[in-house]
Amino acid sequence: MSAIDVPVALLGYGTVGSAVNRLLIESEEEIVRATGHRLRVVRALVRDPGKEREFLPDPSILTSDFRAIADDASIAVVAEVMGGLEPTGEYVLELLRSGRPVVSANKQLIARRGAELFAAASQAGVQLRFEASVCGAIPVIKVLRESLSFSRIHRVLGIVNGTTNFILTEMEKGASYAEALAQAQRLGYAEADPSEDVSGADAAAKMAILATVAFGTRVSLEEVSYTGIESISALHFAAARELDMTLRLVGSATLIDGRYDVRVQPSLVDRHHPLAGVEGAFNAVMLQGDAIQEITLEGPGAGGPETASAVVSDLISIIGTTGTGFLQNDACWRQLEPLPPGEVRSPFYFHVEVEDRPGVLAQVAARLAGHQVSVARLVQHEVASGRAALHVVVHETSVAELAAALAEIAQLAEARQAPTALPVVSARGVPGLGWT
Amino acid sequence: MSAIDVPVALLGYGTVGSAVNRLLIESEEEIVRATGHRLRVVRALVRDPGKEREFLPDPSILTSDFRAIADDASIAVVAEVMGGLEPTGEYVLELLRSGRPVVSANKQLIARRGAELFAAASQAGVQLRFEASVCGAIPVIKVLRESLSFSRIHRVLGIVNGTTNFILTEMEKGASYAEALAQAQRLGYAEADPSEDVSGADAAAKMAILATVAFGTRVSLEEVSYTGIESISALHFAAARELDMTLRLVGSATLIDGRYDVRVQPSLVDRHHPLAGVEGAFNAVMLQGDAIQEITLEGPGAGGPETASAVVSDLISIIGTTGTGFLQNDACWRQLEPLPPGEVRSPFYFHVEVEDRPGVLAQVAARLAGHQVSVARLVQHEVASGRAALHVVVHETSVAELAAALAEIAQLAEARQAPTALPVVSARGVPGLGWT
Repeated sequence: MSAIDVPVALLGYGTVGSAVNRLLIESEEEIVRATGHRLRVVRALVRDPGKEREFLPDPSILTSDFRAIADDASIAVVAEVMGGLEPTGEYVLELLRSGRPVVSANKQLIARRGAELFAAASQAGVQLRFEASVCGAIPVIKVLRESLSFSRIHRVLGIVNGTTNFILTEMEKGASYAEALAQAQRLGYAEADPSEDVSGADAAAKMAILATVAFGTRVSLEEVSYTGIESISALHFAAARELDMTLRLVGSATLIDGRYDVRVQPSLVDRHHPLAGVEGAFNAVMLQGDAIQEITLEGPGAGGPETASAVVSDLISIIGTTGTGFLQNDACWRQLEPLPPGEVRSPFYFHVEVEDRPGVLAQVAARLAGHQVSVARLVQHEVASGRAALHVVVHETSVAELAAALAEIAQLAEARQAPTALPVVSARGVPGLGWT
Repeated sequence: MSAIDVPVALLGYGTVGSAVNRLLIESEEEIVRATGHRLRVVRALVRDPGKEREFLPDPSILTSDFRAIADDASIAVVAEVMGGLEPTGEYVLELLRSGRPVVSANKQLIARRGAELFAAASQAGVQLRFEASVCGAIPVIKVLRESLSFSRIHRVLGIVNGTTNFILTEMEKGASYAEALAQAQRLGYAEADPSEDVSGADAAAKMAILATVAFGTRVSLEEVSYTGIESISALHFAAARELDMTLRLVGSATLIDGRYDVRVQPSLVDRHHPLAGVEGAFNAVMLQGDAIQEITLEGPGAGGPETASAVVSDLISIIGTTGTGFLQNDACWRQLEPLPPGEVRSPFYFHVEVEDRPGVLAQVAARLAGHQVSVARLVQHEVASGRAALHVVVHETSVAELAAALAEIAQLAEARQAPTALPVVSARGVPGLGWT
């Protein structure tokens, strides 16, 4: 088969880098057939070329000298799979400026230095693709930027961190947070220090990227508020079950009247919502727009071969679209403002413990009504003699109105504890909850 | 904004055609921004230009003369949204031969005349795209052909007909088949004559297209066996519930040792499988491959704006990839053979009514064991005095072995009725059922 040779360099040769090389070698025939091009890793930048590697048919590709890649004019395209911000960012910038298209799997780099990198790519007329930086093998970036580039997406909902989704799925089955975390660590889904994942920080970086692409405006990492899953307990799952919901760490990016809100929060998800069925370490992203209603993509969010699949997919997409003037910048064509957090609207769940006296329910209901917060569902049960727990789902309301009502409820003589609230993700057609 | 003008012609101007025109006009700015091109419908072929139309800012675009499109060299690309096989097929062939890229929303045309159409496209060096022919707005064809072109997909599972999925979802909630069908007709999800949908024929055409793209071999419509939902009753849903499953019309395309099997059948779907949560008129497709594990895409499977979104997405993809030698044929690079139907393997559910006498369960079990069919779960309950229903889920086995065992069970003196079987779609990690 006659094919055009495409020399590829990798920055990094760890789990993902070696999986990319393996995939390019093992799928050479398929790639030539689909694209007419033969992609071949000719150099890979590593710190220690002597270290033992997972898959390395030709050890001579390893180099510890970035110049061996930057100064080699024969290298047509580069995949950055080394991670980190420095020196990675400078390397990618230099490669783009020298006219080399780059594929990056680095969410922190894209989320933090995207503007600068895309400006360089655009100026040099080359592509910077970053499918692997969000949700592993799921082609959500390509779908957003190519299939749905004209679709006026107004909402993105995502389960974008596999570690926390694995932990929450285990807790749903009855494990404690500590047990589920320990199991995630045993299986390699969670790091020894899991804080980046369980705090929601990792998901926040991915949501910043998704919101930027979906809304065409730069959403910086600092603008994404996040809450982790560290304080989620069996109590939350029990309440969720009672309401025919489950609990997931949900990233949401919403565009309302030209302003955006991007956040990551543990949320109650209606059983009939597509995100409710996402289990284990899988990820899923739901895109909502006018013509498309909602499209959901689900798949493995991490892993060497899965991430490598996204990197190779980007390499092939660069070959398939080079020279057409398509997608040579990051399409941030407007500068929108964030929505003040209090104005964000959603249905909510909250839980409060009260003394079980006549009139207490009326008191709670009056405080909600005073702020135009309307009750969708309420479950009350005794937790101890003379004490009751109220589990309340309210219709869509603003964060500010809900907070004001809950502050008043906390001041009631009957309240035993300040109420805590979680957003609710409801399914289409769930009576009273609207489409969120 | 300076943009390159792209004159578009439509074949057909019904619900989808007018929605395409509306989307191109209303999203002009977004499309120019994403592609640098302005797509403008300059002509639309209709039978009766005098008929009233849904959205038609410029009635002078209508023509009843195909030559006004075919002979107009200024027309750069054509979208076929008229449906039917003739004269549609000849029109599309002529346009491709004259060097015009074509987008088609016509599953029957692609499924029946794909080979011929792609040969013409390939020879002329132009693209034929067909995203809208399968699953409405869901970009499954683009994902398969671009993101996953190298992925060695070995299985495609799909809910690809919204009408039947709506009916089954209503039946799950308690409606009878007749009630659910009537409601689907009231809501416009089902035709007055629903046979194309409820028989599984529509789903079969879509599965033929998906299998062809996924496996790189031409799967003809005649090779897709299908069973509809006409005989599904409350009994099936009751059994499904008891086994923690639901029932869906599932299309499956499987590649085993270089041979393929493509079929559409009512199937029991494990509650934890991503397809179990697909409700109402939505569609979903799960793609299974080596590196990607499984990726599921879910969204609206029909509707004017949704289908128009897929058509416009294809128009934009043509602009974004023209001249790069990418995707100019249908990528059927091998001629595989179908798997003999008896060799297809799956876990199965079957139901049989027996006389409730000592030893009858042992008799049934012995007949299964005699054909190496192994029981995964069994639920027995009394249906009337002296009669019991057995609901049995068996581990993966071949259709031939199961049929042989069931034939013997039907011959038992205690059997009151021939057993009927449905395939089971199990989730990853469901004990004993394997990954299907």
